[in-house]
Amino acid sequence: MLRFIVENESTESKARAGKLFTARGIINTPVFMPVGTQGAVKAISNRFLQEHGFDIILANTYHLYLRPGMDVIRKFGGLHKFINWSYSILTDSGGYQIFSLNELSEIDESGVTFKSHIDGSKHFFSPEKVIEIQKIIGSDIMMILDHCPPYTSERNLIIKSLELTRNWAERSKIAFNKMINPEIQSLFGISQGGMYKDLREQSLYHLLKLEFDGYAIGGLSVGEPAEIMYEICDFSTDILPKTKPRYLMGVGTPENILNAIMLGVDMFDCVLPTRNARNGQLFTTKGKINIKNAKYKFDDSPIDENLDNYSSREYSLGYLRHLFMSGEIAALQIATEQNLAFYKWLTEEARKKIIDNQFMVWKDNLIRNFVDYKNDV
Amino acid sequence: MLRFIVENESTESKARAGKLFTARGIINTPVFMPVGTQGAVKAISNRFLQEHGFDIILANTYHLYLRPGMDVIRKFGGLHKFINWSYSILTDSGGYQIFSLNELSEIDESGVTFKSHIDGSKHFFSPEKVIEIQKIIGSDIMMILDHCPPYTSERNLIIKSLELTRNWAERSKIAFNKMINPEIQSLFGISQGGMYKDLREQSLYHLLKLEFDGYAIGGLSVGEPAEIMYEICDFSTDILPKTKPRYLMGVGTPENILNAIMLGVDMFDCVLPTRNARNGQLFTTKGKINIKNAKYKFDDSPIDENLDNYSSREYSLGYLRHLFMSGEIAALQIATEQNLAFYKWLTEEARKKIIDNQFMVWKDNLIRNFVDYKNDV
Repeated sequence: MLRFIVENESTESKARAGKLFTARGIINTPVFMPVGTQGAVKAISNRFLQEHGFDIILANTYHLYLRPGMDVIRKFGGLHKFINWSYSILTDSGGYQIFSLNELSEIDESGVTFKSHIDGSKHFFSPEKVIEIQKIIGSDIMMILDHCPPYTSERNLIIKSLELTRNWAERSKIAFNKMINPEIQSLFGISQGGMYKDLREQSLYHLLKLEFDGYAIGGLSVGEPAEIMYEICDFSTDILPKTKPRYLMGVGTPENILNAIMLGVDMFDCVLPTRNARNGQLFTTKGKINIKNAKYKFDDSPIDENLDNYSSREYSLGYLRHLFMSGEIAALQIATEQNLAFYKWLTEEARKKIIDNQFMVWKDNLIRNFVDYKNDV
Repeated sequence: MLRFIVENESTESKARAGKLFTARGIINTPVFMPVGTQGAVKAISNRFLQEHGFDIILANTYHLYLRPGMDVIRKFGGLHKFINWSYSILTDSGGYQIFSLNELSEIDESGVTFKSHIDGSKHFFSPEKVIEIQKIIGSDIMMILDHCPPYTSERNLIIKSLELTRNWAERSKIAFNKMINPEIQSLFGISQGGMYKDLREQSLYHLLKLEFDGYAIGGLSVGEPAEIMYEICDFSTDILPKTKPRYLMGVGTPENILNAIMLGVDMFDCVLPTRNARNGQLFTTKGKINIKNAKYKFDDSPIDENLDNYSSREYSLGYLRHLFMSGEIAALQIATEQNLAFYKWLTEEARKKIIDNQFMVWKDNLIRNFVDYKNDV
């Protein structure tokens, strides 16, 4: 069983600092997990993550199942060996991708039939099959197959969707108990229910009864205003037990993450830092900047001297701008390293401040600075 | 003045092992210089080159003059600081790029008027201006402005082109003597003359009279058969003094490089290893491979275990293939690192074998193996 301890609880908020123990190491929380959908975080080599001290990355069951395929992953003895990564991996179940990449997917209680976005071939995922796939992948933390309805769905559709998610959660847990060695792999439940608190409550209590190793808050950051996201998040962490890790899926901006940490969330993943890096938007300890802006043309200051990261300290803003303007691939790599190093710094600083009971002042200052200083994006 | 010593001359061939001393360090020859046209070698960060022990890289005067522009390079105190590179830089003069990227460039004895391939703006390069630009760049080794006629040119056109190159060479040397501190920067002449030995001879003796720090063989690898390239190269190194470094511009395949080393060439540059890497063609110590080939799908052997390079030893052929098939940017980075590490290994091994007087047997074996083994490209 996945061990989790809360080391410090903030007296000023619901924020907490903890430790997650997987078979592959200890993960300090709050933690941000870089997204390596296809077994690689976009624009960098896994070597950077390994050297820069990331303890856990995220990969995607749906994508890996389609390519390279389970025969390859099995031959290599699991995803860790395939991608040369020795720390923890959490795999998303792929539910979200199936529904967002396949408009023609057919869902019934048994599972979902979908067409590959690569070659159009037909496939079927059941809750049980998703557990089986994640067993082959060797995920340290697996996620259940869930159904995430669009933000704009009517209440009755969300109720139907939640019934499916609940049914699948039960079957996932049964399959996990049957197939998996819980000393090696663990399973998180995913709560849904749209923006309706009564449905969220139902979903959460149902998951708690099934006893998962951790609990994810799914179906947020799907287009709703940030205030509603925080409200559902706050409501959810009030119900969730303090003794288990909480994971807010697909979130978000530095501000979102800090506010969710305040609300008691421990784990995060998001494509934002890597995707924005490739568009030239940098997150730095001094604020957000758009590196393509002409004002950086002559700027010989380091990208971010406050981060302990080669690219951040050794390359200048002016050089990185030149690489972007010239269409050099190195631009994407250096910007991605900067943004990931920043996200790592962000959660590590948050952790320190929680332990020192100074989280709230620090958070509010940082968000304010982040908005004011060099905010040219 | 650029110091160069020949440490070992092969008794079996014209191959030699030497040392080049610039203000920024010692360069063992034969040497391959990775091409960083715009101040970055494509698909990698300069950190890789710095860590992997490259002593010299090549950049391009024409490209850097247009972007980021000399005002930026001057503000940063030269190219080395701008790109965060502490070892030597050789800059090509840009002549080749002006003629290949600008079909409408206008040449007369004074220089060449051309339009920027970026924004169409009009510019003028004279031999003197090219020296001035390379002074601002801070090139350890500068190249003169030359004119490289197409391979298919008639003899009378090549004669005219050579007259221009000779005139420009003289003016380049005068400008260099007037403007440059020869303790810090040095200047190479470039020989031309198409595939005509009498014109090559004229060109070489003219350059020798002007006394450059080193001599480049230009206008080869422009479409002619390899045998003709070797013949002109052989003919040229017979004329060139043994005491000066010889640079064969824009060459080439591993086989080309080994054969040219045999003919007494010391320095090389080529986009081949980096460009081919981005297309999935790898050079390894076991031969050439096309990593996209289906036969590597399940191959868990390292990309190249004989190279002392992280990517080569830690990532498998199967994983690299997956990255290419999935369109991941990391594929380009890892493949580029492999090919550059291979080219470095190739020239370093050649050097060792020259010193041990075993170059010829080693070269012939390597070329044979290279053609036979795993040759699926």
